[in-house]
Amino acid sequence: MGTGATMRAAAAVIGVGESAYYRHGRSPVDEFSLCLDAVRAACGDAGIRPADLDGFVSFSDDRNSSVRLATSLGVRELRWSTMQWGGGGGGSAGAVQQAAAAVHCGFADCVVVYRGITQGRHGRYSQGAATRRWSSHFVPYGHLTAANFFALNATRFFHETGIDPGVQRSVVLASYAHAQRNPRAVMHGRPLTAQAYDDSRWIVEPFHLYDCCQESDGAAALIIVSADRARATRPDPVYLLGCVQGAGHRGGGVIDGVFDSETLGTAEFRTVAPRLYAMAGVTPADIDVVQGYENFAAGVVMALIEHGFCEPDQANEFFVPETFLAPGGRLPLNTSGGNLAEGYLHGMGHHIEAVRQLRGTSVNQVPDAQLSLVFAGPMVTPTSSAIYGSEATL
Amino acid sequence: MGTGATMRAAAAVIGVGESAYYRHGRSPVDEFSLCLDAVRAACGDAGIRPADLDGFVSFSDDRNSSVRLATSLGVRELRWSTMQWGGGGGGSAGAVQQAAAAVHCGFADCVVVYRGITQGRHGRYSQGAATRRWSSHFVPYGHLTAANFFALNATRFFHETGIDPGVQRSVVLASYAHAQRNPRAVMHGRPLTAQAYDDSRWIVEPFHLYDCCQESDGAAALIIVSADRARATRPDPVYLLGCVQGAGHRGGGVIDGVFDSETLGTAEFRTVAPRLYAMAGVTPADIDVVQGYENFAAGVVMALIEHGFCEPDQANEFFVPETFLAPGGRLPLNTSGGNLAEGYLHGMGHHIEAVRQLRGTSVNQVPDAQLSLVFAGPMVTPTSSAIYGSEATL
Repeated sequence: MGTGATMRAAAAVIGVGESAYYRHGRSPVDEFSLCLDAVRAACGDAGIRPADLDGFVSFSDDRNSSVRLATSLGVRELRWSTMQWGGGGGGSAGAVQQAAAAVHCGFADCVVVYRGITQGRHGRYSQGAATRRWSSHFVPYGHLTAANFFALNATRFFHETGIDPGVQRSVVLASYAHAQRNPRAVMHGRPLTAQAYDDSRWIVEPFHLYDCCQESDGAAALIIVSADRARATRPDPVYLLGCVQGAGHRGGGVIDGVFDSETLGTAEFRTVAPRLYAMAGVTPADIDVVQGYENFAAGVVMALIEHGFCEPDQANEFFVPETFLAPGGRLPLNTSGGNLAEGYLHGMGHHIEAVRQLRGTSVNQVPDAQLSLVFAGPMVTPTSSAIYGSEATL
Repeated sequence: MGTGATMRAAAAVIGVGESAYYRHGRSPVDEFSLCLDAVRAACGDAGIRPADLDGFVSFSDDRNSSVRLATSLGVRELRWSTMQWGGGGGGSAGAVQQAAAAVHCGFADCVVVYRGITQGRHGRYSQGAATRRWSSHFVPYGHLTAANFFALNATRFFHETGIDPGVQRSVVLASYAHAQRNPRAVMHGRPLTAQAYDDSRWIVEPFHLYDCCQESDGAAALIIVSADRARATRPDPVYLLGCVQGAGHRGGGVIDGVFDSETLGTAEFRTVAPRLYAMAGVTPADIDVVQGYENFAAGVVMALIEHGFCEPDQANEFFVPETFLAPGGRLPLNTSGGNLAEGYLHGMGHHIEAVRQLRGTSVNQVPDAQLSLVFAGPMVTPTSSAIYGSEATL
């Protein structure tokens, strides 16, 4: 079976960009305009014209039509326009993978991966807006929101592994600490103490308020070209070393309703993570910094374990804030503030921060970072992960 | 700019399959079950086990989750799960292109492209069910259904080219004639005469009743692997010589609302068709048989012209039923009956018939067919086209 290893470093990132990030409902302009802002910013960063783009990829049923965006940006010939399957946050690295495939096959030359989301205008997940399209088997039991759904996975996970659900706090406190040095972060200037975390109300056990990702308005974008073109474009391209998506058998989680007792307590990186490391040719010990999707903080715990950063029996010691704090932590995590504290861009922000770390431009820079790992939404299949590397890793 | 030419014959079809096809609302089982039927049939045709699949691709916001399907089929490790962007029928060849990219990059080994649709259960487009998500700028003007939308494109096209809208009849009569020899066809046993066509009511001018695609319940599937694996699997693989998607500037048609006076009267193969032939290394004169998506018969007229089969000033002579009738017509078209008369599988049926023609197993076989062209939904962007070839064309 192919591992995709021939695709290691076949593609690279030449530009990243964001709109302003807002709390839900606070954006003065619509989602489409935010997408244009993000894509134009990424083009500016890459030193290309927006009209040079010929591919558009998104995920999670993004509402912002590739054809409309391409037209608005002056693209004369759209050549690749694809969507990672599935709602939720599982797909950001899968979208990057599609962009890499497009440029490798010659189906497009310059592909933007983006995500725009304005939860204030289009339905707040926390209010069950998304439940309408989910099963009527859930709703009569008061099982309405993502927090309800994923609480089942997390509870099962903590039960099976014996890990204290309180370890979630370490993930949350690191994100908020990092956001205090990130002026773009929605939670900038709003530090979170351990006491405030502990005192916060339950949304759904085992999730405190701060374990749940915020809701935001914003857009983020990343531009992928072939590695050869990237080298010709800028001195510091960031290479895509690994990029994998998928799910195991009965990997549907609660939303798809195909889990069983063996898979309910997983984040569904069981098959993704081994393939990711095989493609990238690195091990967990090689990774310098991680950006991990926090739908709920428990998902990060589950995903870090499934990516091999910690054995379950060491988790209660590993999951302390000091592990995750840049610059000196053992495994700096979510160094922009992530979904929890920078902005909920459905995970696109994680990719952008991964790139910044390898360029040395993060506000929470990890010294000499060469390998950045990103995982997309845990417990949401097909899920996906990526490893980015600097020139030195080739 | 890359043309994707290195992808010529990189991938091939080893299996095709369908569920039973029904008129809308007549399926005794749900859409998901029909998908399973189609995928299992394609696996049977390919001589593989369903559990050997590791990639799932669809288009037009298919409701049938790849993760659920993979689990139901016993797949242990799902590795590629993507969606061609956009609703409507523009994406079937784009979905095939994604499957080819996946196997070429080693991201998956054996990818099924499928589409399930049960319009009786999930909303009949002809009743404006899809309009809810479209613009409120249209609805107050009574502009409710796909027929309303595409009538604007077609009217503009006929006005600009001077082609008689009556040429649509040739497309319809050929499809119905072919369906009479296809026992699977929903319109099998229901021949259509020129008189009945002429006497049928207008749905929206310039579309007679029979110019509009029917609505159906069914599913269809096609299995893509690398060309090397295809050769090792069966003696008669069908190679994907060309596969292209896209749109030109302001190529959004009426639905996306980004057309202008120059693009309203096009089917949006302006940029797709030249790239398709460049990738496949053939010309329109080389093509033996065409399967063309009929949302409305005018779309086929527009698309055939944009694919270079006829100049507009020759159209009134070219578009006669004899041109399109297998086996002896100048350009046999929709030899299974197509969307109009076989079944409306959102265009997947066209790919399956293209493969049958190259295997020599169509009920309306074109003698010695070596090159089969398929175009997906005209006027629906991103749209897409494919050229399949036999071993002799390599």
